[in-house]
Amino acid sequence: MSTPPPDSTAVARAGDLALLVGLSHKHHIIRLTPGGQLQTHRGVIEHDQLIGRPWGSKVFSHIGRPFHLLEPSLANILLETRRRTQILYPKDIGFILVSMGIGPGKRVVEAGSGSGGLTTALAYAVGPQGHVFSYEIHPDNLELARQNLAALGLDERVTFKLRDIRAGFDERHVDALFLDLPNPADYLPQVRNTLKPGGFFGSILPTTNQLYQLLAALREHNFAFVEVCEIMLRYYRADPRRLRPVDRMVAHTGYLIFARPITDPPPDPPRKR
Amino acid sequence: MSTPPPDSTAVARAGDLALLVGLSHKHHIIRLTPGGQLQTHRGVIEHDQLIGRPWGSKVFSHIGRPFHLLEPSLANILLETRRRTQILYPKDIGFILVSMGIGPGKRVVEAGSGSGGLTTALAYAVGPQGHVFSYEIHPDNLELARQNLAALGLDERVTFKLRDIRAGFDERHVDALFLDLPNPADYLPQVRNTLKPGGFFGSILPTTNQLYQLLAALREHNFAFVEVCEIMLRYYRADPRRLRPVDRMVAHTGYLIFARPITDPPPDPPRKR
Amino acid sequence: MSTPPPDSTAVARAGDLALLVGLSHKHHIIRLTPGGQLQTHRGVIEHDQLIGRPWGSKVFSHIGRPFHLLEPSLANILLETRRRTQILYPKDIGFILVSMGIGPGKRVVEAGSGSGGLTTALAYAVGPQGHVFSYEIHPDNLELARQNLAALGLDERVTFKLRDIRAGFDERHVDALFLDLPNPADYLPQVRNTLKPGGFFGSILPTTNQLYQLLAALREHNFAFVEVCEIMLRYYRADPRRLRPVDRMVAHTGYLIFARPITDPPPDPPRKR
Amino acid sequence: MSTPPPDSTAVARAGDLALLVGLSHKHHIIRLTPGGQLQTHRGVIEHDQLIGRPWGSKVFSHIGRPFHLLEPSLANILLETRRRTQILYPKDIGFILVSMGIGPGKRVVEAGSGSGGLTTALAYAVGPQGHVFSYEIHPDNLELARQNLAALGLDERVTFKLRDIRAGFDERHVDALFLDLPNPADYLPQVRNTLKPGGFFGSILPTTNQLYQLLAALREHNFAFVEVCEIMLRYYRADPRRLRPVDRMVAHTGYLIFARPITDPPPDPPRKR
Repeated sequence: MSTPPPDSTAVARAGDLALLVGLSHKHHIIRLTPGGQLQTHRGVIEHDQLIGRPWGSKVFSHIGRPFHLLEPSLANILLETRRRTQILYPKDIGFILVSMGIGPGKRVVEAGSGSGGLTTALAYAVGPQGHVFSYEIHPDNLELARQNLAALGLDERVTFKLRDIRAGFDERHVDALFLDLPNPADYLPQVRNTLKPGGFFGSILPTTNQLYQLLAALREHNFAFVEVCEIMLRYYRADPRRLRPVDRMVAHTGYLIFARPITDPPPDPPRKR
Repeated sequence: MSTPPPDSTAVARAGDLALLVGLSHKHHIIRLTPGGQLQTHRGVIEHDQLIGRPWGSKVFSHIGRPFHLLEPSLANILLETRRRTQILYPKDIGFILVSMGIGPGKRVVEAGSGSGGLTTALAYAVGPQGHVFSYEIHPDNLELARQNLAALGLDERVTFKLRDIRAGFDERHVDALFLDLPNPADYLPQVRNTLKPGGFFGSILPTTNQLYQLLAALREHNFAFVEVCEIMLRYYRADPRRLRPVDRMVAHTGYLIFARPITDPPPDPPRKR
Repeated sequence: MSTPPPDSTAVARAGDLALLVGLSHKHHIIRLTPGGQLQTHRGVIEHDQLIGRPWGSKVFSHIGRPFHLLEPSLANILLETRRRTQILYPKDIGFILVSMGIGPGKRVVEAGSGSGGLTTALAYAVGPQGHVFSYEIHPDNLELARQNLAALGLDERVTFKLRDIRAGFDERHVDALFLDLPNPADYLPQVRNTLKPGGFFGSILPTTNQLYQLLAALREHNFAFVEVCEIMLRYYRADPRRLRPVDRMVAHTGYLIFARPITDPPPDPPRKR
Repeated sequence: MSTPPPDSTAVARAGDLALLVGLSHKHHIIRLTPGGQLQTHRGVIEHDQLIGRPWGSKVFSHIGRPFHLLEPSLANILLETRRRTQILYPKDIGFILVSMGIGPGKRVVEAGSGSGGLTTALAYAVGPQGHVFSYEIHPDNLELARQNLAALGLDERVTFKLRDIRAGFDERHVDALFLDLPNPADYLPQVRNTLKPGGFFGSILPTTNQLYQLLAALREHNFAFVEVCEIMLRYYRADPRRLRPVDRMVAHTGYLIFARPITDPPPDPPRKR
């Protein structure tokens, strides 16, 4: 067995991402930088006040308002992503990752980058040995996605490309490819050129009309094992004496589609003996 | 920017995990071994027939039945896990991973190991730089979990321990800790001793009665940011001419609970200026 | 205030519909008839044994197996309807009734009759002062629906017609009209001829493809206040010590569509003063 | 066969309930009264302008804003009920009616009256031959419920009683009894005294804690055929070119509970022959 890694650090260090949660559960995600400052509606917090302090501590702004100092989860990060576009929800992203074989060391292509929400999740999941190639047609989106990834320290794992994917992707034989754009049905030949045979294709679409078109195109382009699903997430009030679901919930984020490009049958199947 | 990894391999190699899917969508997961054989109800397939063949190929058993050769996703693997116990579903596991900060390099504790389903997901997600410590009280479960992880080549990332966790965990300051057992409320002091301050605690419980007890205990033991939710996954028939949800679905797997242990306030909050 | 009716009868009488529920919760619905017999897998029960006995009693078959004697609800009746076709579920029927203004005294048209499930609900809800006109193109369906309604004593409230509704309906100015057939979009002119202006139109469709076509046709034919919804019903295990949802549920029965035909604007709107 | 009733009236008459829907889909429900006026944010409409006009017409306020003149469904009425309390949703009420055998001619007890929402639905469904007995402990609620029922012309079918139901109900052998109050578990002896044996008992409760207590009490008081469920209603955008669920939905209104009081077994079950 390999040697387990040393104990994780229990204190916040310069360079760490930190989540600060105030009284109203307002979340702030920052990268701890000596001399840095976090400005909030409830006062200012000096980064130097946080560096060296145990995770889970309560800290106070200059006007005495309390905040909790926590490490952010991927879900925390995604929900706080600065955005110009609709971003994917953690409920969908978690299922995408486990359904598309996305983990340490994988090479993944996505288009478009949007605000970089899914890019963040992919870069996080593939780890330092993997890589993400993220295509985007709008320069402003690309710039925001790049900034968001840099702010999280994940930019080394991502290659951004400003490109209309109608022109195709540069990569070959990638493990997984995700299209988060309105007309994925138009790009399946490009997908087949880049995704390795049998690789993982995925997409998310808000309307059933788009879903139709993609399903028809997947058949035409010889994708198999097509799955379509939707995920509903319902929160509960965490009060043990009045345990019940919350009053309102998100009704729809999108339909998830997964499929795998297959090759033609080999020329001479063995005869039945 | 770091150098992207070389192109992923587009052909199946000895040592790879492979998913073979037959006509009725019956799934078989195997580790490709020279000289090995897969026995199915639709005939025998020699591993040597598969090694070197492109992923996504159609192959045939000795009686001529077709199978597709694919790389398995984590979801594929989880659903095929040999089991003695109820296992977690991919829909829940994906959300657990993104909500509990579990990714490359993390150190995670779980109890109980059960059949090793969640262990597999954790070991996959933490990558070669992370580690999983998995506690189990039943020797038969532990043995099965160990076998399942070994069959997947993930056993080097996991330390199994046969232990009643009432006696506590050996690790300190781990990043995340998940309890998949009937009475998590009984072990919160042990959790606090092992999970780093502000770390990620999670559990899944089938009944609202268990949920009560855990919520009450979390309050008592100073856990904060408690979240309770459930995830409903509904599949659709992927027929573009008759697009509709399937007839029946899983109604319930369990309530997911997430919380974070916090420390007491520091002794001298700054005065309001 | 009108005089309240006399106390309901607390004992089963000849002519009443009765629900007999055996140990495994198998349901039997019968009309109590002097001299009649109910044959079950758990023995024979004489109707005379039931007539005069209080509702809620436990009774025994000739081989000593217990049954409970109950009055059936509309939901009980619907779920036990003899059927040749898919029938509507109580969850959908309840919402249809309250959304389409169907109650005592109303005149309602439906097509097709199918096995008479919805016909039963409509006839029950409109009461002795209302009436249901039920159109069906298949003679075998019509015959079964007629038998089912007669067995329930509701046939006096229903006029069945063997007819292709392409030829139109005979009635004029009915209060509500429901189409439970695969291509409702094809019959909207016929609907407008029969449904009174502003009346209640409803339909149920299993696929999104059918739903498209109906929505497009409703626009074309000047229907307004179009609503589309789906209803999900999840049961719980009623065990107070292990309270939780059941394991599996119905994922889809159909999309419900409601709309109201409106007239053109009157010729001379008043000027703004 | 009985004679079908004459054609329903296609024009609005004095005394009818009318639904007026403005441009923003704001709903107004009024009883048409010669000389009456409806004041809206979009101008005044004279009742005399509406009386004699066909249902489904477009009418205009004194400042020229358009409204549609429609007959209201029960669901329309319920959603517009003036309220002091949380009211039941049409999705739940429809299922309650079909599950509890509530239809023309039935005698039903409810407590509390609340704002009269369920009272309205019950009075509507039992028709002129049935009756509703509605108990309420708060005089202000009772007065509002009474006014609401009177405004709908349904007050003749309802007997309101200002009473703490701890003292019991006056009626005997009613067909169905519904408790919409926080602690139904406390009143099951009173329920048994009033509901006929085998009759329909129902309740709705927001929290799982209340649900526990009721389920435990139902066992203790010999209620059988206990069912617990929840109903989720999801609307779709009715745009055929962009067909998709709406963004947000109601996540929870309450758990529905149904049960039936049964009698003890008769003293001497027949021996097995």
